Amino acid sequence: MTRVASAQTKKLGTATLKFANPPAVVAAAAIGGPMEGRGPLGGYFDRITEDRLLGQKSWEQAEIKLLESAVELATQKAGLKPADVDFVLAGDLLNQTISANFAARTIDRPFFGVFAACATWTEGLTLGSLLLDGGFADTVVVGVSSHHDTAERQYRFPTEFGNQRPPTAQWTVTGAAAVVLRREGRGPYITHATIGRVVDMGIKNPFDMGSAMAPAAADTLQRHFEDTARMPEYYDLILTGDLARVGLPITQDLLKQKGYDISDRSQDCGILMFDPGQDVHAGASGAACSGSGFAGFVVTEMARHNLARVLFTATGALLSPTSYQQGESIPCIAHAVVVETEKGGEEE
Amino acid sequence: MTRVASAQTKKLGTATLKFANPPAVVAAAAIGGPMEGRGPLGGYFDRITEDRLLGQKSWEQAEIKLLESAVELATQKAGLKPADVDFVLAGDLLNQTISANFAARTIDRPFFGVFAACATWTEGLTLGSLLLDGGFADTVVVGVSSHHDTAERQYRFPTEFGNQRPPTAQWTVTGAAAVVLRREGRGPYITHATIGRVVDMGIKNPFDMGSAMAPAAADTLQRHFEDTARMPEYYDLILTGDLARVGLPITQDLLKQKGYDISDRSQDCGILMFDPGQDVHAGASGAACSGSGFAGFVVTEMARHNLARVLFTATGALLSPTSYQQGESIPCIAHAVVVETEKGGEEE
Repeated sequence: MTRVASAQTKKLGTATLKFANPPAVVAAAAIGGPMEGRGPLGGYFDRITEDRLLGQKSWEQAEIKLLESAVELATQKAGLKPADVDFVLAGDLLNQTISANFAARTIDRPFFGVFAACATWTEGLTLGSLLLDGGFADTVVVGVSSHHDTAERQYRFPTEFGNQRPPTAQWTVTGAAAVVLRREGRGPYITHATIGRVVDMGIKNPFDMGSAMAPAAADTLQRHFEDTARMPEYYDLILTGDLARVGLPITQDLLKQKGYDISDRSQDCGILMFDPGQDVHAGASGAACSGSGFAGFVVTEMARHNLARVLFTATGALLSPTSYQQGESIPCIAHAVVVETEKGGEEE
Repeated sequence: MTRVASAQTKKLGTATLKFANPPAVVAAAAIGGPMEGRGPLGGYFDRITEDRLLGQKSWEQAEIKLLESAVELATQKAGLKPADVDFVLAGDLLNQTISANFAARTIDRPFFGVFAACATWTEGLTLGSLLLDGGFADTVVVGVSSHHDTAERQYRFPTEFGNQRPPTAQWTVTGAAAVVLRREGRGPYITHATIGRVVDMGIKNPFDMGSAMAPAAADTLQRHFEDTARMPEYYDLILTGDLARVGLPITQDLLKQKGYDISDRSQDCGILMFDPGQDVHAGASGAACSGSGFAGFVVTEMARHNLARVLFTATGALLSPTSYQQGESIPCIAHAVVVETEKGGEEE
């Protein structure tokens, strides 16, 4: 297979990639647990599971099953067979990203493991787009998963403890998301990606991820606006991953101080995912929060012509049980991608 | 910054990328602990630390320091400032790859986190090469780290336990490695990459990684030979990451069954790293085993004109403490890159 790469591929400013051949999002799949199904975004999921165990022996096995199903469903929706997929890129929150690695065993395609905590989704979209834009592949699948119970027992306390959660805590989404990206196809298209730096403002509380991640999100968004010379008004929607009710206002404030007012067009998947009545405190989190927000909500609303230009920024808190127990702070990262119904978009 | 990408970039066969603009390895740095310094490869390290704690409070902090130092040293050796680096790609073995993420906080450049256990090194080299070949960057740094004591207490038992290790056990390398890849520069060059699939033959023993990883290494090498239509004889050296004394003969046997005899030109970093008298049982392992084998031994021997064409395959065991405790088997992966002193190599 020989592919011709473009002569116009470029890097903008400090951290933004502009794809000369913007990859098309040809299919997307989002699978959610029962609580996600009852939330405001419930109708955007392709499939809602009956319980959080999916008939498996452990929550970890259930999470693997969610990711396998999302990848399988997205591939089917694209009208493709597994063998048509050149490369799979996936990651998740668990130690050594076992959900992705065990799912990759079943998926059985050349595989890249990525990790950026809940920002894994946009890191995967970026690297998948590189493979396509560079002419190395026709078809790439990007996937992520997360699970409330696997995440709680790894990062905080096993859910059986029934420990009290403070108001700043977020609720990890149980679910998985996958998209099929291709060199050719009806859009929407991934036109740009802005790669984040690790930012750490000293927050140490694993029950307050929103405050920890907000500065990283603001840093990446500021770089995006500077690199592209676009103002927030260019976008119909600036959607973040899982800053939730505590983090989004901080990101909005930080950006306002830098001259970028995103308050009238920004929203967060962690706020959209659950109803306040669902007792999730600050909102949702998890790699599948960003993933299903993108694969479910954004892709659907773009197909319905309700959105044309979206700046999507997944946000990740890069703590581990070990670093937390050793009293370390929480380094964070945010990676942004631009999704547009038109390939070219407006010239910078 | 506008870069012209080539029109000849392509994918070969099922899983091999051929770079149209092979990135140059312009500088490399390898840092090892005291035991690595006393081993047969000791002379290939740029720096040997006095102890495994490096003056830090914890082994985890020592590992972060190792990675930071390797990235800093490689950048210096390339005659570059940190700000000259467009992107950093790094990973390690710890839960949520904290060594890489905490080091990235200090390094402060746009950052991609990658995870493929001990195969992280070649996954990073591949993705870094994509960024350069695609015209998205001039300069990329790829880094990995591992540490005997952080790995033992995470995957098996804290070293203070003094538990007995079976003969199949490997000793995780304490160290870090980094290379600077650039679009322009004297070689050697990364000319190809073959991306592995996850292979799991049912091995469950975390004290026998060599047997678990050998089939994944054989699978990737077989694909490489098929995809490129090259025979093993094309290469001066076929070097694997950390199959060690148990795994390498298995990989050699599996490939012989497929018609590829690599026995007269294959070697393993896990065998080269330590002397049998160092009491490491089957040999070395760890992301820094592959990394320093490449950044120290391979790069140096290519500069000395003792090697011209090397097929380098890092091998990763994708287990986690959680999956092991739940009785799961060990999925494995291997990613290969070709390093050649000549950009073009021989036509396939």
